[in-house]
Amino acid sequence: MKAVVFEKFQTFPSLTDIEKPTPGPGEVLLKVAGSGACHSDVALYKEFAEGDPGASAPPFVLGHEISGWIEEVGPSVDGFTKGDAYLVYGPIGCGHCKACSRGQDTYCENQASMPYLASGIGKNGGMAEYVVVPARNLVPLGDADPIEAAPLSDAGLTPYHAIKLSLPNLAGGGKYALVIGLGGLGLVAVQILKALTGATIIATDMKEDAMKAAEELGAVTVPGGADQVERIREIAGGRGADAVFDFVGATPTISTAHASVAVQGRITIVGIAGGTLEGWNFFTNPYEATITNTYWGTIEDLHEVAAMYRAGQIKPQIEKYTLDNALEAYEKLEAGKINGRAVIVPHAEI
Amino acid sequence: MKAVVFEKFQTFPSLTDIEKPTPGPGEVLLKVAGSGACHSDVALYKEFAEGDPGASAPPFVLGHEISGWIEEVGPSVDGFTKGDAYLVYGPIGCGHCKACSRGQDTYCENQASMPYLASGIGKNGGMAEYVVVPARNLVPLGDADPIEAAPLSDAGLTPYHAIKLSLPNLAGGGKYALVIGLGGLGLVAVQILKALTGATIIATDMKEDAMKAAEELGAVTVPGGADQVERIREIAGGRGADAVFDFVGATPTISTAHASVAVQGRITIVGIAGGTLEGWNFFTNPYEATITNTYWGTIEDLHEVAAMYRAGQIKPQIEKYTLDNALEAYEKLEAGKINGRAVIVPHAEI
Amino acid sequence: MKAVVFEKFQTFPSLTDIEKPTPGPGEVLLKVAGSGACHSDVALYKEFAEGDPGASAPPFVLGHEISGWIEEVGPSVDGFTKGDAYLVYGPIGCGHCKACSRGQDTYCENQASMPYLASGIGKNGGMAEYVVVPARNLVPLGDADPIEAAPLSDAGLTPYHAIKLSLPNLAGGGKYALVIGLGGLGLVAVQILKALTGATIIATDMKEDAMKAAEELGAVTVPGGADQVERIREIAGGRGADAVFDFVGATPTISTAHASVAVQGRITIVGIAGGTLEGWNFFTNPYEATITNTYWGTIEDLHEVAAMYRAGQIKPQIEKYTLDNALEAYEKLEAGKINGRAVIVPHAEI
Amino acid sequence: MKAVVFEKFQTFPSLTDIEKPTPGPGEVLLKVAGSGACHSDVALYKEFAEGDPGASAPPFVLGHEISGWIEEVGPSVDGFTKGDAYLVYGPIGCGHCKACSRGQDTYCENQASMPYLASGIGKNGGMAEYVVVPARNLVPLGDADPIEAAPLSDAGLTPYHAIKLSLPNLAGGGKYALVIGLGGLGLVAVQILKALTGATIIATDMKEDAMKAAEELGAVTVPGGADQVERIREIAGGRGADAVFDFVGATPTISTAHASVAVQGRITIVGIAGGTLEGWNFFTNPYEATITNTYWGTIEDLHEVAAMYRAGQIKPQIEKYTLDNALEAYEKLEAGKINGRAVIVPHAEI
Repeated sequence: MKAVVFEKFQTFPSLTDIEKPTPGPGEVLLKVAGSGACHSDVALYKEFAEGDPGASAPPFVLGHEISGWIEEVGPSVDGFTKGDAYLVYGPIGCGHCKACSRGQDTYCENQASMPYLASGIGKNGGMAEYVVVPARNLVPLGDADPIEAAPLSDAGLTPYHAIKLSLPNLAGGGKYALVIGLGGLGLVAVQILKALTGATIIATDMKEDAMKAAEELGAVTVPGGADQVERIREIAGGRGADAVFDFVGATPTISTAHASVAVQGRITIVGIAGGTLEGWNFFTNPYEATITNTYWGTIEDLHEVAAMYRAGQIKPQIEKYTLDNALEAYEKLEAGKINGRAVIVPHAEI
Repeated sequence: MKAVVFEKFQTFPSLTDIEKPTPGPGEVLLKVAGSGACHSDVALYKEFAEGDPGASAPPFVLGHEISGWIEEVGPSVDGFTKGDAYLVYGPIGCGHCKACSRGQDTYCENQASMPYLASGIGKNGGMAEYVVVPARNLVPLGDADPIEAAPLSDAGLTPYHAIKLSLPNLAGGGKYALVIGLGGLGLVAVQILKALTGATIIATDMKEDAMKAAEELGAVTVPGGADQVERIREIAGGRGADAVFDFVGATPTISTAHASVAVQGRITIVGIAGGTLEGWNFFTNPYEATITNTYWGTIEDLHEVAAMYRAGQIKPQIEKYTLDNALEAYEKLEAGKINGRAVIVPHAEI
Repeated sequence: MKAVVFEKFQTFPSLTDIEKPTPGPGEVLLKVAGSGACHSDVALYKEFAEGDPGASAPPFVLGHEISGWIEEVGPSVDGFTKGDAYLVYGPIGCGHCKACSRGQDTYCENQASMPYLASGIGKNGGMAEYVVVPARNLVPLGDADPIEAAPLSDAGLTPYHAIKLSLPNLAGGGKYALVIGLGGLGLVAVQILKALTGATIIATDMKEDAMKAAEELGAVTVPGGADQVERIREIAGGRGADAVFDFVGATPTISTAHASVAVQGRITIVGIAGGTLEGWNFFTNPYEATITNTYWGTIEDLHEVAAMYRAGQIKPQIEKYTLDNALEAYEKLEAGKINGRAVIVPHAEI
Repeated sequence: MKAVVFEKFQTFPSLTDIEKPTPGPGEVLLKVAGSGACHSDVALYKEFAEGDPGASAPPFVLGHEISGWIEEVGPSVDGFTKGDAYLVYGPIGCGHCKACSRGQDTYCENQASMPYLASGIGKNGGMAEYVVVPARNLVPLGDADPIEAAPLSDAGLTPYHAIKLSLPNLAGGGKYALVIGLGGLGLVAVQILKALTGATIIATDMKEDAMKAAEELGAVTVPGGADQVERIREIAGGRGADAVFDFVGATPTISTAHASVAVQGRITIVGIAGGTLEGWNFFTNPYEATITNTYWGTIEDLHEVAAMYRAGQIKPQIEKYTLDNALEAYEKLEAGKINGRAVIVPHAEI
């Protein structure tokens, strides 16, 4: 079968033929419906060198945002019907530590001894005609479109998890949420916040298009510039935002996040631009305001993301590519020319 | 000044002239903007006899859903400007027990020794040209209409408090809320649930009008009848509702509530029809589903209700009456002829 | 190998020879260290008839409270070392629904289509020399004694889960917990409450011995009788208990539980005597007090129970029996002659 | 009456005669039982200059840790009996904003326009024979010793509030708490953690005496030095601490706090040494670990602190001084020669 394979560190992937896999015990073979191309794929094949912390050793098939139809089940797997559509929870932990027991494989206590992190990260992923994944990682999609759903397993799950942990801060009337960075994740975040909270959503980005999209989804937007924080605080009742989500994570956005948070608010840095918050201090932190980071989400979260998608509360923006054009999708992604998310669709006419 | 006074137990109130009050220490004199007529007023003057548990001894001015403009402040009161509009938190506890310290006067530990329960319940209320209330009980309305807001201090606050305690059950995607009883409180509940959660809202009532109103506010409705519970569970993903709110509280509605709740769901009985749940049992209760009651809310809750009102997220349905027509409003209320809430408006041309 | 087999409905189990099992994919073969004999085993073989709701069809090896040493791992299982000691989480769900994904197999959404409920309940359990269990269900015991630990997987996990859900009610100073029923689970509950909360623990039982044991663990005891509730409320600051745990679940104990709970308190019925609470009513329920039931616990909970055991915070009371004497243990259990928990120890000299 | 008055910025206080105050509306006159001398008093009179942010303008009587007996109540105050003992919640907000409504005057939204922050901070405090405080700020002590209790209103309430917000992180078995800085607040923190959680308490300080005291209260201690963090993590199951409390707040202690926290843990900086955390970064922060600060507590918290004191769960270490020797107490405090807390006792023979 055809697959997009990351073959060597710091080398663009290739489209090659590999053997169609067979599901082992506890596993399922999916006929891939869609596989999202994510910025972190580019990091995997372009930036890391062998032995770098965080590097995943090639070769493997890319694609950690996967949806598909049941094709075949492995030994000891029950309860699935051929042809049913599922979304795939990417992370794969040891399966028996405390974190994995609650479906939070992202924080697996035995990660250091695991040969891979996720489907498509160290282990063959979804940029292929077929993919084998653990049965436990499947989330049913019912009759909702699985192709459009594919990016939800990362671009939906990641903001969802960050927001879910912040729901106590946004519970009730008169709350304010701030979303910094309106790319794929940020725009999904606006949709999730709109659906799950009554908060006034303040959104900011440097691109006008992104700001317009956020407004259409119900956010109030504030452009960058010298008075950005002042305007945010003004909209937020003078108090600041009860929950801040930074989908960029650069030093200036983290600084904006911290300057905009309310007393008892919560800042979550989701973006991995690697910026720093300089000089956190007792006297400058609004009392009881917290700052933290989050990484991906839990299986249960993904069930809830799928429910929101099926209810029409989240609608990912996608561009479809065939497997034959998959490398073109990565080229465009590197060039910043993708609007929304590129989804590779191995089996459909596009 | 004119006032609607409850003069004798089991006697219809009268419209009489009483002295305009003077604010004492810690108190404020409000020029009344609006005062909602509530079913529990009818209970106060019609049902209770002297010495009954729950009875409040007459005479006093009715009206526990009050809004108004600052007219005068008492000694040791600062920070208010004449003419500013406020909503009034009705309950008045001892002010120094643990429950009162967190603004939950409803559960005052010294209630037994208090001479009254609330403004308009044992103490002069808002059915008059002016009313004196504790400064601490004021919630600012800014430039929002105070007349329409008046009922929020009970008909808004009561469902809000019940819902706020259930928000953890409704947090996230794929949740279901059930509202039983679509009178004033139930329809406000639908609005609050719509604004603050992403839950599918299922609503039920015996009146077609009420069901239509709930649909317009975004609920899915289910009529009564033999298959009511079956249809509710079907809509609710087969699992049942994660949060159930019963604004009737009669034996059949409590039974419907219990039959419709999901594993780990929460039932709140808000309506005071005095029904019972027969035969709660380990084997018939969905695991970890809870049942409880709630009463009114906290001062902080009322701040949040006011914020929702100011943001357009709650819109009470009201009918305005002058003070001269206030008794007519109570007559209609007794006869079940009020749509929404009757609000007495002492100072406006109507 | 020798095993205690439940062979036919309403028939006392027999000690027979069966084949030593082999671990399949995702499974582990444990050399059994200890296997607790639980009252619910008696219900399984004595009370149920074929087709009864809740019946588990024989034949199978009894024993759902299991500890053991890794003997052999099945295909695709990594990260275990032969001889290491583990506690076994009994429940086994479908493994891929939302509830199973968070390690709460007790509430598996596909339970109706599962052939068994747990190791030892429909599937071969721990009353044998060896047992096969899912690798995911293992909780490490380190160098703590696995024999004494065996009952923790039910008699520890069940009260732990009930208490963990009540911790918000007991968080902080000046709280009161009430434990009704001081058998195996109740006495473990007292230990858990003592370790994890600062609450005053009030305990009640009809047996003097049990009361004395609870006192030694730090509880204040109240005997049954006409003034039981009055005395409980008196000790509990006049307010009642913030959390009540009923390990009996008979009509009189549920009634005591409800009469003793404080405003905003939480009642959990854990015992399965099948009693009912008659006449739950808005006007008699202390405001915001909840009543619920719970069943067993989660895998993550069991990790935490094991941590408490390893820290010396829980010490189960056990009586050891060899496999050859296992049937005697069940006879004594039926006769009410076991103090604490009978643990079958297949491989040790006793 | 005699009083310790802060008369001029940057000037040691004097013991002078002032008029005995009279309680106004909503206020109570207390005969002072005890008044704790706090390091922040020294900051008030020694460090601040006129117009400095945070400065409180003299003259006023010092003492914000106050206990006393009811001597007289002001107009409109009910429910108090002469001679009853109370602890005083120090902070005084506007009384009618959202934060004050929930008894969290520390975060009063109108603080900027308030003439003072607390009893003893801008307003006459407890270093005198009598003091006037708001009735709402009183917390009953029953028959517990009020003198020893005095410091609890700050040295007890401050760690209590920080710990209470961290209880969700410490709920359950197998948790670890780290206390940095074992002065008055740190040692009370160890007692609170011991009483309210089952966590292993790790404590660290530079003074051997303090470490020994913490050990006696049940903590495991780790000295400073190069391998301090390594040893903390080792004790904390390799994962790090689930909740960290830094009662110093200097740059090195904040750094230790951050290096010791577990994934999903919570760091609270309580100490006001003014240090900074340099370089908070997505990649170095353990996932979902938060860092925050807290300030004092709520009235409800103080009720709970009083309950713990009355139950013997907190025992402050105090040294008693008469009013005549009060200035000596401040001299010793400046010189670092007080063990525990100096409490001024105006009315007792010492």
